[in-house]
Amino acid sequence: MVHITRRSMLAATAIAGASAATGAKTTGRRPYRRIATEEGFLSPAVLAQNAKTHIPGVPLITSEGPSSLVARTLLDLDGGRLSAMDADGIDMQLLLLSSPGVQVFERSTAVALAADANDYAAAACKRHPTRFAALAAIAPQDPAAAARELERATRTLGLKGGIINSHTFDHYLDEQSFWPIFEAAEALDVPIYIHPREPATGMREIMSGPVAGGPAWAYGVEVGTHILKLISAGVFDRFPKLRIVVGHMGEALPFWLPRIDNRYVAMRAGMFGGAKPMQRMPSDYIRENLWVTTSGMNYWPQLRMTLDVLGRDRVLYATDYPFEKQGEAVGFVEAMPLGAADKKALFEDNAVKLFGLTR
Amino acid sequence: MVHITRRSMLAATAIAGASAATGAKTTGRRPYRRIATEEGFLSPAVLAQNAKTHIPGVPLITSEGPSSLVARTLLDLDGGRLSAMDADGIDMQLLLLSSPGVQVFERSTAVALAADANDYAAAACKRHPTRFAALAAIAPQDPAAAARELERATRTLGLKGGIINSHTFDHYLDEQSFWPIFEAAEALDVPIYIHPREPATGMREIMSGPVAGGPAWAYGVEVGTHILKLISAGVFDRFPKLRIVVGHMGEALPFWLPRIDNRYVAMRAGMFGGAKPMQRMPSDYIRENLWVTTSGMNYWPQLRMTLDVLGRDRVLYATDYPFEKQGEAVGFVEAMPLGAADKKALFEDNAVKLFGLTR
Repeated sequence: MVHITRRSMLAATAIAGASAATGAKTTGRRPYRRIATEEGFLSPAVLAQNAKTHIPGVPLITSEGPSSLVARTLLDLDGGRLSAMDADGIDMQLLLLSSPGVQVFERSTAVALAADANDYAAAACKRHPTRFAALAAIAPQDPAAAARELERATRTLGLKGGIINSHTFDHYLDEQSFWPIFEAAEALDVPIYIHPREPATGMREIMSGPVAGGPAWAYGVEVGTHILKLISAGVFDRFPKLRIVVGHMGEALPFWLPRIDNRYVAMRAGMFGGAKPMQRMPSDYIRENLWVTTSGMNYWPQLRMTLDVLGRDRVLYATDYPFEKQGEAVGFVEAMPLGAADKKALFEDNAVKLFGLTR
Repeated sequence: MVHITRRSMLAATAIAGASAATGAKTTGRRPYRRIATEEGFLSPAVLAQNAKTHIPGVPLITSEGPSSLVARTLLDLDGGRLSAMDADGIDMQLLLLSSPGVQVFERSTAVALAADANDYAAAACKRHPTRFAALAAIAPQDPAAAARELERATRTLGLKGGIINSHTFDHYLDEQSFWPIFEAAEALDVPIYIHPREPATGMREIMSGPVAGGPAWAYGVEVGTHILKLISAGVFDRFPKLRIVVGHMGEALPFWLPRIDNRYVAMRAGMFGGAKPMQRMPSDYIRENLWVTTSGMNYWPQLRMTLDVLGRDRVLYATDYPFEKQGEAVGFVEAMPLGAADKKALFEDNAVKLFGLTR
């Protein structure tokens, strides 16, 4: 039995350091590329708009104050980032506009800044085509414009899908007014990544503090809840080929999966006030329409459980750079007792297939 | 790799049936007793009061209507329940007043009905001392009375700890006004079981529907959030010997544990708006003050992960009778590749030690 103590985590960190260094030295000789699929960036225009935006309980990254260092790291899509990737043994990053993206801005500002951020990311992908791919920022505030931008960004700019940071002004994507975005994603055959942010008003006040609030717990609850709302609203009945991606080892959905089915069946039979039957079982939607990445959760007991529950074709490596330590995360995974084919699927094959990466 | 498909769950259910039957026939020859540690009951007085109580979004069990069958099952602490335990291979049930207990009633009613429910459970334990033990219902609406009832129920009636169904009229136990309950539990050296109910106002409206709401997801979020609020409020600094128990495989806390530490450290260093330092790491509190039961989550990938993360001394078997199928749950566990000592710890030893069971 493996007890994850702080001592063993430190040992794993030490392994991580060694392994990452080795990884960097042997680039090209590994039997797989290491592709990281939830890596943050910011555009200069979004960074400037963040400074003008104030929402209680929602910290935004700005170029001044305590977040200025991470802001500089997020802006850099050239030398500094490439050096870090080389040192940490990451071959390619899939870039996502850092949370909450444009979703906290007024509608027309959000639409314009999403397009600008996509141009910024696309230019970096063009400069470094073997090192970067990107997802398209979109503004759910204007679903029709978001659908058009998803098409422009993927067809014209070559981006690989869309990214939405959960709720937008407390509205979730189970509301049908947002469904033109899903319709476009299905028609374009590109995935939508649903990334965390602070929970909506009502949840946010309860999930407060350093461990119940923020990325330690509340972010995962926010996205897991969001996915389950999409399922019960019938999003995947309406758009059966829609592909949704979530990070953080599936935001605890793999942990709860058999219970979700079990309690749904009990409720459908009348328990706990009853439930309206859905077309398929909850786990059917999750197994067929959901992919998960390991961002911020590169721990063996959790990964092994997730592979057991979802199978190795559904789990992709991610770091969550620069918020997590890239070399440490690579080292954690390299130290795991995974077979060569499992590692290749996790680090490369699943990302290539899901996001249509060609290089 | 084990894929949990519905087919394999059905196979496991078939094993469960066989194993449970075998278990019943071989009672006394197993190298351990099977003790189930989160098993529901209702007192006649609480059942009657439920019928007079109406809270939007909070279904209560009553003796009329769709919940009448489960109501009869919950009232029965004699023949029918004992027969079911024999058939399913359960030697002893630890009885908990069914959620939300007395916590939805007016203060003086709640105080009186908690005491009455404890008398009802204690009488059953006296009639069947080798088959039942029980936790004490208490009314957090009146913390001083709850502390006194915890003392009476454990010292005079012989109950084994207390049960609280998460929030009380939207108030969580991190508020210091409730801490006389924790002070009493620590002084009496008895554990407090924190059991789910519908989330507080604000969360409940968002976590709605058959899979985001209720026991499929929202209940776990409710209790996991509650535990993390206790940690950051300093409950375990003030009461370092306090023992808290949660069901449902730890309400996803074992899944998130390394990330909770990791993000707390990042926030303490200034990320995401910063965090006030706590006396110990979040996982220290969870490893030293928390025990978990498997109620409703008797699935191997999830149990293996939890054993890896928390160690085998912290995980206790539970069914959640009558809301879960007792024989099926026993069969799931008996079919797991656990060693004899692991099974004895899970089914018997940890429960005996944690709750001070003597028979």
